[in-house]
Amino acid sequence: MMMGDDVENGNLGPYQDRPRTFPNMRSKTYTPLIFRILMGINVRVLVILLLLGFGYVFYVGASTSPIIVFVFSVCIVSFLLSIYLTKWVLSKDEGPPEMAQISEAIRDGAEGFFRTQYGTISKMAFLLALVIFAIYLFRSTTPQQESSGLGRATSAYITVAAFLLGALCSGVAGYVGMWVSVRANVRVSSAARRSAREALQVAVRAGGFSALVVVGMAVIGIAILYSTFYVWLGVGSPGSMKVTDLPLLLVGYGFGASFVALFAQLGGGIYTKAADVGADLVGKVEQGIPEDDPRNPAVIADLVGDNVGDCAARGADLFESIAAEIISAMILGGTMAQRCKIEDPSGFILFPLVVHSFDLVVSSIGILSIRSTRDSGVKSAIEDPMTILEKGYSVTIILAVLTFAGSTRWLLYTEQAPSAWLNFALCGLVGIITAYIFVQITKYYTDYKHEPVRTLALSSSTGHGTNIIAGVSLGLESTALPVLVISVSIISAFWLGHTSGLVDETGSPNGGLFGTAVATMGMLSTAAYILTMDMFGPIADNAGGIVEMSQQPESVREITDVLDAVGNTTKATTKGFAIGSAALASFLLFSAYMDEVASFANESFKQVDIAIPEVFIGGLLGSMLIFLFSAWACSAVGRTAQEVVKEVRRQFIERPGIMEYKEKPDYSRCVAIVASASLREMIKPGALAIISPIVVGFVFRVLGHYTGHPLLGAKVVAALLMFATVSGILMALFLNTAGGAWDNAKKFIETGALGGKGSDAHKAAVTGDTVGDPFKDTAGPSLHVLIKMLATITLVMAPVFL
Amino acid sequence: MMMGDDVENGNLGPYQDRPRTFPNMRSKTYTPLIFRILMGINVRVLVILLLLGFGYVFYVGASTSPIIVFVFSVCIVSFLLSIYLTKWVLSKDEGPPEMAQISEAIRDGAEGFFRTQYGTISKMAFLLALVIFAIYLFRSTTPQQESSGLGRATSAYITVAAFLLGALCSGVAGYVGMWVSVRANVRVSSAARRSAREALQVAVRAGGFSALVVVGMAVIGIAILYSTFYVWLGVGSPGSMKVTDLPLLLVGYGFGASFVALFAQLGGGIYTKAADVGADLVGKVEQGIPEDDPRNPAVIADLVGDNVGDCAARGADLFESIAAEIISAMILGGTMAQRCKIEDPSGFILFPLVVHSFDLVVSSIGILSIRSTRDSGVKSAIEDPMTILEKGYSVTIILAVLTFAGSTRWLLYTEQAPSAWLNFALCGLVGIITAYIFVQITKYYTDYKHEPVRTLALSSSTGHGTNIIAGVSLGLESTALPVLVISVSIISAFWLGHTSGLVDETGSPNGGLFGTAVATMGMLSTAAYILTMDMFGPIADNAGGIVEMSQQPESVREITDVLDAVGNTTKATTKGFAIGSAALASFLLFSAYMDEVASFANESFKQVDIAIPEVFIGGLLGSMLIFLFSAWACSAVGRTAQEVVKEVRRQFIERPGIMEYKEKPDYSRCVAIVASASLREMIKPGALAIISPIVVGFVFRVLGHYTGHPLLGAKVVAALLMFATVSGILMALFLNTAGGAWDNAKKFIETGALGGKGSDAHKAAVTGDTVGDPFKDTAGPSLHVLIKMLATITLVMAPVFL
Repeated sequence: MMMGDDVENGNLGPYQDRPRTFPNMRSKTYTPLIFRILMGINVRVLVILLLLGFGYVFYVGASTSPIIVFVFSVCIVSFLLSIYLTKWVLSKDEGPPEMAQISEAIRDGAEGFFRTQYGTISKMAFLLALVIFAIYLFRSTTPQQESSGLGRATSAYITVAAFLLGALCSGVAGYVGMWVSVRANVRVSSAARRSAREALQVAVRAGGFSALVVVGMAVIGIAILYSTFYVWLGVGSPGSMKVTDLPLLLVGYGFGASFVALFAQLGGGIYTKAADVGADLVGKVEQGIPEDDPRNPAVIADLVGDNVGDCAARGADLFESIAAEIISAMILGGTMAQRCKIEDPSGFILFPLVVHSFDLVVSSIGILSIRSTRDSGVKSAIEDPMTILEKGYSVTIILAVLTFAGSTRWLLYTEQAPSAWLNFALCGLVGIITAYIFVQITKYYTDYKHEPVRTLALSSSTGHGTNIIAGVSLGLESTALPVLVISVSIISAFWLGHTSGLVDETGSPNGGLFGTAVATMGMLSTAAYILTMDMFGPIADNAGGIVEMSQQPESVREITDVLDAVGNTTKATTKGFAIGSAALASFLLFSAYMDEVASFANESFKQVDIAIPEVFIGGLLGSMLIFLFSAWACSAVGRTAQEVVKEVRRQFIERPGIMEYKEKPDYSRCVAIVASASLREMIKPGALAIISPIVVGFVFRVLGHYTGHPLLGAKVVAALLMFATVSGILMALFLNTAGGAWDNAKKFIETGALGGKGSDAHKAAVTGDTVGDPFKDTAGPSLHVLIKMLATITLVMAPVFL
Repeated sequence: MMMGDDVENGNLGPYQDRPRTFPNMRSKTYTPLIFRILMGINVRVLVILLLLGFGYVFYVGASTSPIIVFVFSVCIVSFLLSIYLTKWVLSKDEGPPEMAQISEAIRDGAEGFFRTQYGTISKMAFLLALVIFAIYLFRSTTPQQESSGLGRATSAYITVAAFLLGALCSGVAGYVGMWVSVRANVRVSSAARRSAREALQVAVRAGGFSALVVVGMAVIGIAILYSTFYVWLGVGSPGSMKVTDLPLLLVGYGFGASFVALFAQLGGGIYTKAADVGADLVGKVEQGIPEDDPRNPAVIADLVGDNVGDCAARGADLFESIAAEIISAMILGGTMAQRCKIEDPSGFILFPLVVHSFDLVVSSIGILSIRSTRDSGVKSAIEDPMTILEKGYSVTIILAVLTFAGSTRWLLYTEQAPSAWLNFALCGLVGIITAYIFVQITKYYTDYKHEPVRTLALSSSTGHGTNIIAGVSLGLESTALPVLVISVSIISAFWLGHTSGLVDETGSPNGGLFGTAVATMGMLSTAAYILTMDMFGPIADNAGGIVEMSQQPESVREITDVLDAVGNTTKATTKGFAIGSAALASFLLFSAYMDEVASFANESFKQVDIAIPEVFIGGLLGSMLIFLFSAWACSAVGRTAQEVVKEVRRQFIERPGIMEYKEKPDYSRCVAIVASASLREMIKPGALAIISPIVVGFVFRVLGHYTGHPLLGAKVVAALLMFATVSGILMALFLNTAGGAWDNAKKFIETGALGGKGSDAHKAAVTGDTVGDPFKDTAGPSLHVLIKMLATITLVMAPVFL
């Protein structure tokens, strides 16, 4: 089926008897090799392969640790649950044909873009895998590795395999997110014709499906790698590798995941916002037609964008967050267990996997707690969907606190320090509270119930200029409280870990960093539910678009509008959550990097002294990298949006009948323009992010060699990483909050305040919203990924700097 | 004389027979105590005091070092020259009465605001002086100080005296800048009626006057303090203080200067941009009247703003830059001379004073090289004033290279390392080249002859939103090249110093940091000329405003328009220059801070290890401080501008005759509103900047005390300082460049491109310009000052953190 055909053969509302005039869009997309191979596999063969896989997985799991078996079982149960959720969602009807046709057009556009995009990404991933392989073949091995007989070639194979598996899983995570959202959107629209509650439930379950898959895959992927390496390298037997060194082999997985996530987020983010901005600039501002109006030629591209930008990209983003956080926590747990000579270190190493297994369990309960009202046939009054979602969140969070405390007692109890588990449980609580406060702060700055957005709306009444100044100030100001919260939580978690009673040989306390790691896990201990709420947003947004385009009655629109508004809030709060966890995770990855460098260089590497000019410059370059990356991400959207604007203007001029519903806009041309432009534009910022730390590290390594500074490259990269993390957190907070606030200031005015729709204040607010779009949905989220990508790339590429 | 009277009694163009209707503005301002005392002094008494002062100065200078006598002589000669320049400027005619009246209104507004503002600042300075005194009374003294008999009380008196002198000189620098600009503006307008060249010459000489005073005062102030302390403390005699410890006593001077500069820049910056934005939003955007149109009630406030924001504030800013840079270089020179056991260290310590003395000489030659054409009576065709200014700059820069090399040979030659002076001369060259490249980069990104601004202008054609997105991207991107240049110059200057042959007792090289210091001096070695070009900008801008308001013929306007455009470019390039030197100076001040902490704590303090969580958090807080400060600076402008918008709209509604020139706008009400609002708004960001490093240092000191981390407070503050510096440099580059580019994109469209004035693209460009105003003239320049203020405050407040 081709997108063009779907739309053209059917009756698209008022256009049903128009001639087909627009070129076929599908001709632009092609199916890359990797997809052709995957699609060519027979279903039965696939099932057999899967069963064999499960058998293998349980075999190696059982040979490793009972904890791994527990993790596998939970993951597989959640996969089964997620299959149930999909079936439940897919069993819902797709509504009248006009809805289904729009949905099919969106689906085709999204899948076409996804294929091309991931085709490009997979080519780059293979190229990078070769580079990594070459580097690892010529690297020096660590003394531990040498003693355990892990040669260069083995180390290279392991890293590359982990990298490719990480990349593949990340791609699947993105695909799953998009796959369900392009199918659920129309079912939500259709359900909205019956009841708000049912629509909400469909959207939540669809989001829940991909959330469970994403989190489950991150956990099971790492568990499989871990146990495979464990069995393969004969860990634990005398003369071979120690279990505490094993997590360091997994860094490739994290890098693969973040590599794919970076490009997914960039490409998707550019796509969605270029289409959105382009559609708004001509549609809303110039022609004065509402959002998602079928007369706007860019409207399908805009709806496609929600799926590839928000669903696919956020899936890959969260997948990568969880993977990076698990791996770094495993490395820190291993290092600490080794230093403190803990007898059975596997509890400390596998703790993160168990936490996320429980995350799957409690989030599933939270998702399932959102039910249809008993008598779904009777239309009930619209409840506030936010309340329902928050009720589910409360359930999840309470269960998470309990299971988290249980896991610490189970895995982190050691006779050396009998009360350590309690300290770590408190660390987890610190993380959970931090997440909660972060969400509240984001809400305060982006919800129009509160002062900041109202002030912003007020400043729109004095013009475009004051609106932008106020929004920028609001965004910059909103960085303060989260930073204070992060500061307090890092210090208190570190302190709780430090005083846990775990001491090394010399008797000095050693649990501080692991305490921070546990806090990060606490923060992410409800990740699946958070991701569900986040996925809910774009699905509801799309459903609203379909309702609008298929011109449903006002009552249906009202329902999807409410869901859409809630979706905006959940999207904004998830971003706050994502930055908070990125900040903590980067701090962990940084420590892991220092450990890794120390183990390769075979000397102590505990300090990054910014009083050394070169190290200071590394920091300067790191911060600059964030600014430049944000610049390129924003300007990519600007440039692509301008192409859309020109195309839409051209269509309005060449087909004057469009505005009177007499002529049909050429949707697919806009889709094709946005798709090809965003693929082109994602390369530059992406390449910058990947190449610059490597180049900086290598240049300073050479410089250090000639000036007699050992480890200069590694130190400069460490500073680059830290400064980039700090600047990245602040910049991402600024961009996300400013964008969210502008969006909601516009929504506030649309509720009738300050003159309402069509007033000058509204026009100024729309300008703000336009500016905020690339901020909050392209540059901001890409920065989350960038921060973690920098941390994982330095881990994998460390041999280059030494 | 009251402002209202001046305007009302005279004939203000079309209003000459209108009744006076607006309230008297002067009633709003009052003369603070300090000004009343200063103004109460009899002129003869003043002359006698001055002569006595000179006598004393030469006496202590002669007792200290012949170098000091040289410095004094040069400074006094340049003061005489600056008096000649003033006389020359003031001898020019003020043009027809309508011009003079407007000028008087501006002068009165500016001086009124200045008095109130500096009254507030002086109160805060006295309060802070008390706090510093109290802290120093209870501080611990360094072992060196103890051995030299420098007690707590003496140390407290010295610091407070230096602080107050620095604050006073900074205030005078600001006042001088404003004093001459409010007098020169009308003379430039008047000269523009005769010839472009003459107008240029008047503006340059007026700028040159204040530049010479500002630089001369920075140099002579430090020289006086240095020699007074030298004589008073009996330095050099056995058993007393060593000369190498003397520069550390001067830090109070730098802090006093930066304290005043911060508030001057904030208050002035808020004033000028709130008036400008407010005037533009209603005048240009809503009513469609041109800039500086007499019908706009906010136009006088806007013109006043140029003087208090650009002239006064930039004078204080550059004064503080030079003072901070001299003091930090003296400290580093002293430390190095001591470590390397150089026999006569005074050459290394006094080197910065000599460099800036030569700066005065070569810049004077550059300023005087810009002459009237021989036959000034004949109107010549308009030459490009930029070419003339650049010719003067070339003269200055060539002479600066020569005198710089000469000074290094004179003062930095030592028998221990006979070729060291050559290395340091090369460091100076690195600095001069860095300054040159910085200026070129700024030009590339902000001049509409080049690609970036043209792309920005093009993006205006697709609407307000894309214009803002493109401008933000441009600004963020423009941080990259300057950072690379700074990185290369820090490393190469450090390396040149390192290999200079200066070694300490253990034989390890020790000249690296001093090399960076010399590069900074090289960068600032033409500061007086740069400041002249910078001051030229607002004077030309004001002259243009007066010409426009007094409705002069088109030919006169053309001349002032050209001068105004050149002024915009020089203003933008000076900012690039200011950031570059701020970046280098902060790095020096940071090193000085580490030295100071080490000397107080009496233990080595050489590392700031960001792998320690608390130190990392210090960095996070430092970067956040920059974001929050920028937010508050921008929102202050936004809020004040909204008040102006409301007032202007009110006047247009209540006095409908204004638009037909039938009624007179109430200028003074706008002046009063802006003045009181900007004084109110400058407190919050200013207090944030001053209080937060002290609080952070103190809190972590206490935390460190209880957790057994010695020096934790000092380390955290060091990280705060470094991260704030890095983020501040990037943020300032972003804000300044984006603002400048938006401004010139608008100007580019006004030349007729993309539809020219009045087109939709122009409207979008005006929005960008409005947004850019607080970026480039409030937040950006305040950040330069903030960076250095943070460095000096940590130096002075170090006892609190220990």
